[in-house]
This record gives sequence, C-alpha cells and structure tokens, in this order.
Amino acid sequence: MANQHKILGIDPGLACTGWGVVTAVGNSLSFVACGVIKTNAKTPDAERLKTLADGLDALIAEHAPTSVGVEEVFVNSNAKTSLKLGQARGVGLVCAARAGLEVGEYTPLKVKQAVVGYGKADKTQVTHMIQVLLPTAKLDGLPADASDALAVAITHAHHAGKTF
Amino acid sequence: MANQHKILGIDPGLACTGWGVVTAVGNSLSFVACGVIKTNAKTPDAERLKTLADGLDALIAEHAPTSVGVEEVFVNSNAKTSLKLGQARGVGLVCAARAGLEVGEYTPLKVKQAVVGYGKADKTQVTHMIQVLLPTAKLDGLPADASDALAVAITHAHHAGKTF
Repeated sequence: MANQHKILGIDPGLACTGWGVVTAVGNSLSFVACGVIKTNAKTPDAERLKTLADGLDALIAEHAPTSVGVEEVFVNSNAKTSLKLGQARGVGLVCAARAGLEVGEYTPLKVKQAVVGYGKADKTQVTHMIQVLLPTAKLDGLPADASDALAVAITHAHHAGKTF
Repeated sequence: MANQHKILGIDPGLACTGWGVVTAVGNSLSFVACGVIKTNAKTPDAERLKTLADGLDALIAEHAPTSVGVEEVFVNSNAKTSLKLGQARGVGLVCAARAGLEVGEYTPLKVKQAVVGYGKADKTQVTHMIQVLLPTAKLDGLPADASDALAVAITHAHHAGKTF
C-alpha cells in the first residue's frame, strides 16, 4: 500500500487566507478539512499577520501535514496590493518552513490546469471540480478562498506525486 | 530621568535585511548595534524567509528592544519585486508582533525627513547623517541596508517620542 500523505494547501491573503487539508494515497485523494483565517481590518498589519501566523501554526499542529502547497500570485496592476499579498504569503511560507515542511508554490495557471485541466478556468469551474474530486468537501457558506486552498493542495498532490 | 527606550529598526529585503538598534533617552540617541541578515539565493523562498525570521527572533532576544520600526516601501515598477519585498516585510512584522512589540511603519520619505530633514535626500546623505547622529555607529564594510535600518530606528524614535 502506498504511503499516506497529508497536504495543507494555502491561498494566502491579508484579509482572508484560505486553507484546505487533503490526504493522498497513491492517486486517491480525500478531503480532511478546510476553512479560512480572517483578520481584522481595523488592526495594524503586524497584528493581522500575527493572526495568520498563529492560525497556520495551529492548523499545522492539529492536522500534522507532511507537506504544504502555497498559491503563488503576482498582482500586476497594483504594487501596494502585491506587497500586502506578499506579506501574507511570507507568513505562510515561514510557518511551513519552521515546521520543517517541504513547500510547493503554484501559480493560478498551474492550479487550474491541475484541477480543471484548463488554465483559463473560472472560479465557478474550480469550485465545481473540487466538489467532484473531493465529494465530501464541505464548502457551503465558506469564501472561495477555502476551495482555492483545496485546489492548491490537490495541485501539490499531483506535482509532488512522483516522490510519494 | 526619562525612561530608556531601545528601538530595533528593520529595512526588510529577501536577499538582505538590514537591522539597527538604538537607545533613546528623551531626545538623546545612542548607537547599540547594526548589521544585515543575508539569505542564500540558491535556496527556496520559504527557507530564505525562515532565515530572516530566525535572525530577527535572535536579535529581538539578544537586544530586547521595547519597540520596532519597519521601512514601508512600495515598489511601483514591478509587482514580482513588490511581492518578494512584501514577504520579507511580513516576516519582520510577525516577528515583532509575536514578541509583543509595538511596530511603527515609515515610508522612505518619512525616514529621510526625520534623518536628513529633506524627503528627497539620497543614500549618501542618509548614511552621512547616521554618522552625525550616531557617531559611534560602525558602518564600515556593511551594506547600506544596515544604515537604512538605523535611519528607520531613529525615525521611530522621533515619531514615537511623544509617548516616551
């Protein structure tokens, strides 16, 4: 029997960071959990980033993933937005590295190709495919960041598959 | 006698993060230490950010600052560069917040105004004024990021002064 791997997918954002955990045994994927970490826009960035770091550390402690996938987004239109996003992403990367976990980074194009098979898929198609690939995923009432994070976890499972 | 405050200034960057520590007693500033944390460009971003986080945690433990100033830079030309810079900045903010330290963020304009009295000052003028304001500062052989970090610490001392 192939080893079981548990993957934490992260869709980083300062206001709302999506997360999703899946297990992969060979080619078989299973849903474990997903959700979002929201931060209070009325608090300073440092506090918001601490909320993200504490939340991710708690998730890593609870689910004990064996590796982490993080969405790699370049915002082209606005340097300020890119900087804020980078801050949130940096926190995700550090939490993973400090837990000694291997990190894979995936562009939205790669994530869509892995999940929908089509790099220009829209958000609805991604969410639909998440429900097909992970039928037990509980996405109702959650922001799209949660299903995006599951999509990143699935992408990481596909890309890291050869080493499993 | 006024209370002594110790300020850690951070000039964040993924490749090289400058840091500088000054003490402030009333209006009087003294140099404590400065340097840079360099990361290995051949390692993944997550590892590099972990190097920054570990380095900053060690500095906070060693120097026990009472507050932290961080340079707030927006790179307008390149979203990818902004994102990388944001990652490094996010790490600095989280390290400060986790240590329970108040964080001030200052644009390069504010830093130059505080240190040189002129927002369009160039790097040479900033370094010169650091040597004037902190005569014992040891900057020889260090990248400009170290004196930039001291400039941020001085700026934070000026801005936070009213609360000292």
